[in-house]
Amino acid sequence: MNTDQIEWIAADWGTSNLRCWAMSETNEVLFRAESNQGMGPITSGHGDFELALLELIQPWLRSGKRISVAACGMVGAKQGWIEAPYSAAPCSPITERITAPTRSTEIEVFIHAGVKQLDPADVMRGEETQIAGLLVNSPDFEGLVCLPGTHTKWATVSDGHIQRFQTYLTGELFTLLAEQSVLRLTLAPEGWSEPAFLDALLSAVKSPESLLSDCFSLRADALLNELDGVEARSRLSGYLIGQEIANTMKGPAPDRIALIGSDEIVEIYRVALDALGWKAEIFPSETTVLAGLAKGNASFDN
Amino acid sequence: MNTDQIEWIAADWGTSNLRCWAMSETNEVLFRAESNQGMGPITSGHGDFELALLELIQPWLRSGKRISVAACGMVGAKQGWIEAPYSAAPCSPITERITAPTRSTEIEVFIHAGVKQLDPADVMRGEETQIAGLLVNSPDFEGLVCLPGTHTKWATVSDGHIQRFQTYLTGELFTLLAEQSVLRLTLAPEGWSEPAFLDALLSAVKSPESLLSDCFSLRADALLNELDGVEARSRLSGYLIGQEIANTMKGPAPDRIALIGSDEIVEIYRVALDALGWKAEIFPSETTVLAGLAKGNASFDN
Repeated sequence: MNTDQIEWIAADWGTSNLRCWAMSETNEVLFRAESNQGMGPITSGHGDFELALLELIQPWLRSGKRISVAACGMVGAKQGWIEAPYSAAPCSPITERITAPTRSTEIEVFIHAGVKQLDPADVMRGEETQIAGLLVNSPDFEGLVCLPGTHTKWATVSDGHIQRFQTYLTGELFTLLAEQSVLRLTLAPEGWSEPAFLDALLSAVKSPESLLSDCFSLRADALLNELDGVEARSRLSGYLIGQEIANTMKGPAPDRIALIGSDEIVEIYRVALDALGWKAEIFPSETTVLAGLAKGNASFDN
Repeated sequence: MNTDQIEWIAADWGTSNLRCWAMSETNEVLFRAESNQGMGPITSGHGDFELALLELIQPWLRSGKRISVAACGMVGAKQGWIEAPYSAAPCSPITERITAPTRSTEIEVFIHAGVKQLDPADVMRGEETQIAGLLVNSPDFEGLVCLPGTHTKWATVSDGHIQRFQTYLTGELFTLLAEQSVLRLTLAPEGWSEPAFLDALLSAVKSPESLLSDCFSLRADALLNELDGVEARSRLSGYLIGQEIANTMKGPAPDRIALIGSDEIVEIYRVALDALGWKAEIFPSETTVLAGLAKGNASFDN
């Protein structure tokens, strides 16, 4: 491994995972590394965050040279390495960062501030860096940015700022219902039926108030009519995402819609929005977060 | 304990608990007994159901006399003692029962049929007996019957029949969100604020499509504005019950509304319905289910 060209290290550090990239001076990716040491599993304080990071990036370090690590995500939460501040929307997606305490002299770790909204109350950590990356790649982007995940975010972006945003419990609720509720007896553990998903989605957009009975009906349909497990799984996803999108669509249609996230989930959202007449553009998660982290790295270097 | 007067035994056997009553010839309650041996904890088949029942009612048995046990609830599910049939709504709440296999010659166990609805698919086991009891006590009842619980049921009753019904995952979802989601960090484990509940309820009835963001906003409000844990707990309940009632209220206002369930939860529903202009009558759970089991016992004796 030739580490001579490594100029800085980018880190996307969420609740479940830590992803790191060794970056060149021109922001090319030289090496990648990933572990399951997200904020969630690390519970014993500062030192353990530093150990988890060093374990992953040790091969990239050179003795005698201190290297910058630019990080974003839940690592900046109260339960994280150090609590990073929140910027208050409306705001630029990257406004400040905080230095994390380290024992090693080989690394200097910066964590991006999150973004908060006071009324209605909302918070993000990590998504602001994705939005910064989107604006690097599409500087004149105006519209809605959707970042699907455990806690899906919808942000209104204009004039280079996050104007306002809203978080939905959609992903977490899907997992809880699929794995822990009575629906676990009915849903297949994987598999996908797009027609079932779209049918449930359209029904949820039309009648969002029936979510809690729609969910139970999957169990009853399995008991009485042998509803297929894959179809049940896809319908549950359609009911939840449909209700989320029904709420989003209360606002005016945006000029553009950006989807940022993992391939599988953004494709599901793209299909859903398309079925409802909204065309969305997909921005790959890795290049987008890296553009945002590089933007931060450059801004604060100057 | 004088067991001479015991004529038959009533059993309400749900997922979590088994409740038994020793009944006189005139359907007076002579003795009560309860255990946590619901259908859920019993997994190894017929024999274990019989043992769980005998453990509870052994003191009531007299040698040489075979006694009838009339049971309702999830004990008749596929995973229960024996699968009881479903009657198809519209139907009388009690139409048939099934005899459970027993080794003991001291008991003869009957389980009430559940009720199913094919489209939209729905099922109940136990609630039909509560509705039968309601009709014993109020033979001319016409209207909506709400049975709040883990899976809350709303049934339309007229002409002595269950015309149709709908099940909501409300109670189970509340427990999952309160104990297992990110909201567990925010919600108090107990406590109640009626103003917070009603405020969230009215907001949910107005905007049922915002449930998934309303839920997350509790977490954000705690992080940013130090939202009180009891208030958060009450608001979550308001969002969920509000969405359920919003769906119910799509139909016409009924002549009467009956609430059957435990004291605490029916009072919450009564307050919620009252705030929305619907007056509900409370029917105590124990006397109602006993009236239903007695009705069944008498019907099939003849």
